[in-house]
Amino acid sequence: MPALSISEVTFCSVCGHTTVARVPSGDNRLRDCCDHCGAVHYINPRPVVGTIPVWGDQVLLCKRAIEPRLGKWTLPAGFMEINETTGDGALRETLEEAGARVKLGPLFSMIDVPHVQQVHIFFRAELLDTHFAIGTESLEVRLFDQREIPWDEIAFRTVSTTLDLYFADRARGEFGVYTRAISAAPADRAVSP
Amino acid sequence: MPALSISEVTFCSVCGHTTVARVPSGDNRLRDCCDHCGAVHYINPRPVVGTIPVWGDQVLLCKRAIEPRLGKWTLPAGFMEINETTGDGALRETLEEAGARVKLGPLFSMIDVPHVQQVHIFFRAELLDTHFAIGTESLEVRLFDQREIPWDEIAFRTVSTTLDLYFADRARGEFGVYTRAISAAPADRAVSP
Repeated sequence: MPALSISEVTFCSVCGHTTVARVPSGDNRLRDCCDHCGAVHYINPRPVVGTIPVWGDQVLLCKRAIEPRLGKWTLPAGFMEINETTGDGALRETLEEAGARVKLGPLFSMIDVPHVQQVHIFFRAELLDTHFAIGTESLEVRLFDQREIPWDEIAFRTVSTTLDLYFADRARGEFGVYTRAISAAPADRAVSP
Repeated sequence: MPALSISEVTFCSVCGHTTVARVPSGDNRLRDCCDHCGAVHYINPRPVVGTIPVWGDQVLLCKRAIEPRLGKWTLPAGFMEINETTGDGALRETLEEAGARVKLGPLFSMIDVPHVQQVHIFFRAELLDTHFAIGTESLEVRLFDQREIPWDEIAFRTVSTTLDLYFADRARGEFGVYTRAISAAPADRAVSP
């Protein structure tokens, strides 16, 4: 007997009937299927997009006002919305979380976080001015010199990895594009990508 | 009066009640919300992952056996699944669609396709052997020299863009990483990213 659902999907979003987990014709894995209307409900990883906003030698970080990792520091980033590009989304998140207007630079890091079904994508960016402000999802927004970065208080490993790579590239005077994968978090950081 | 739904979601997948489109507290855009159980149903773009499988000077393409663009040629690629990385997904699609085993290389292109809510991500790859085979989603799988590429019969603009960039980089002897965005298709290619 198949499991009722492979995910939180238990009702069909198209017709409201209950779904059942089975392998659809022509597919090779379990999906939540509606036998009433025929809909198949796929689940895919979600892109998270953000920037590394730089002003001279300093990097802009935001102190999170929301869970997960409330009170920890992050680069401005968030879930990509429909009808926008990765770059659009990174600019939008930078404005929403840090009130910061930037010139978007090249892609810098693309980090898989499979245990939370996310791909984190960061672009380099230059602040256009220092008139940033605290967004509704932030408690504090400020510029950090490299030596001031609160490494033990960074919200997500994708952010600390991206900052590590950024400072290493800045030191050698040449910027690359990096792909990384982050595996399931240790127990004490279980909710943090 | 709000629209009943901003998407195909009209029933709550958690509890089966109808949803309503409104801006949730703390948010700034319309979401499909369930006033019965409180669930908010977000919609995000989906990553499509694939490879540029190379054997010497030749590139492997697949003739699509399924819609959209049935009968057109593509690089092996498909929707990223949960619990895998972008690289894992690219390898899986290459095996499923082309029966091809490759050594995964670096990220090559990340192309936004906002009008279909997708981000296409291609990695360079080297075929380990020429024992590729026709996958269930392909009618034909074969190697092409650059001059043989059927440019007018390429299934998706993300694929032709990626091939263009690939051959240009090969000609200059140095490979980069590229981000691009593709806007809404002309009317005669309305279903094709």
